[in-house]
Amino acid sequence: MMDKEHRLFAHAKKFSPLTEEDWQASFPFFETLSFRKKEHLAQGGSPNHKIYFVTSGCLQQYFIDNRGISRTVQFAIEHWWIGDFLTFQQGQNSDFYIQAVENTEVCGISGENYGQLLEKFPVWEVYFRQIYQIAYGAALNRVKYLYGFSKEEIYFHFIEQFPEFAQRVPQYLIASFLGLTPEYVSEIRKNRY
Amino acid sequence: MMDKEHRLFAHAKKFSPLTEEDWQASFPFFETLSFRKKEHLAQGGSPNHKIYFVTSGCLQQYFIDNRGISRTVQFAIEHWWIGDFLTFQQGQNSDFYIQAVENTEVCGISGENYGQLLEKFPVWEVYFRQIYQIAYGAALNRVKYLYGFSKEEIYFHFIEQFPEFAQRVPQYLIASFLGLTPEYVSEIRKNRY
Repeated sequence: MMDKEHRLFAHAKKFSPLTEEDWQASFPFFETLSFRKKEHLAQGGSPNHKIYFVTSGCLQQYFIDNRGISRTVQFAIEHWWIGDFLTFQQGQNSDFYIQAVENTEVCGISGENYGQLLEKFPVWEVYFRQIYQIAYGAALNRVKYLYGFSKEEIYFHFIEQFPEFAQRVPQYLIASFLGLTPEYVSEIRKNRY
Repeated sequence: MMDKEHRLFAHAKKFSPLTEEDWQASFPFFETLSFRKKEHLAQGGSPNHKIYFVTSGCLQQYFIDNRGISRTVQFAIEHWWIGDFLTFQQGQNSDFYIQAVENTEVCGISGENYGQLLEKFPVWEVYFRQIYQIAYGAALNRVKYLYGFSKEEIYFHFIEQFPEFAQRVPQYLIASFLGLTPEYVSEIRKNRY
């Protein structure tokens, strides 16, 4: 049986020529952490020093808007990275909270360890370059959906494209992620089903 | 006087240990191209084979929504990359158009050359990893503004944070980028100024 942290190794091998030996030497830079459902990994208004790779479970990243409402900007299920990629290396305050949607296990890495890892093992540059390239490309596509579709289309497109999410993540969080109110989502679901 | 293509070298040196020698050997992988205002670099519905680094001028990336309206998802002025980062290496069709907002000069690179460049000169992995890390982090912040602020706040925040853009880019494109109608932007500008 594969240890959960080995899921990161398996993922990294898919995107880079990382060897077993590299992995053994790299592993101490990461830490494996477990969080209970609803537990916070990071608090807004303080530095988010780490980024996280989900080995099991589900995380959400959100901020609190100026009306006091939580707004989800990103989810991560297995094999996704989550964090504040702009600030985690510099240690500035981040506006983002990171919270477990389910009981979740992660491989986390601090900004400091991340810098050292990339310096000592350039093969991780190859991996992270592709992870971010895909994530950034997908973020532009997300803008496309937010701007180009009606609210109802945005919702049904999302749950059809990501049925696994729709099953695992509470409706109100999906609504928040899509910029909709929970009441609106209840309404359009009632009309459709 | 610095050749315009050397702006890419200067930019890459800021983010990576790229040497003059590496640059000389890398340069043939790029091509320098000029476009007149309004000219298209890429058409939606066909493959976008290249990504572009702007050395002078301004580009926009947009798609056409299902009501036939152009929607800007990204701008690039000097020192920014633009393209469809999800598809340019695989050659699938892209929904995105890329168009010159001003007369513009770029360093372009094809998906094929990009793959070879990264393989031969891993120092470019270091550069692109950081470019995408920043771009992805900024994209999450953009979602924060789109969801967390009123339409009026989104507009004035943008033009205060990026006054250079506001001067160079036509109002209707800024409106499109922020998900607003040109009429709405005229209205709130009239009320404020």
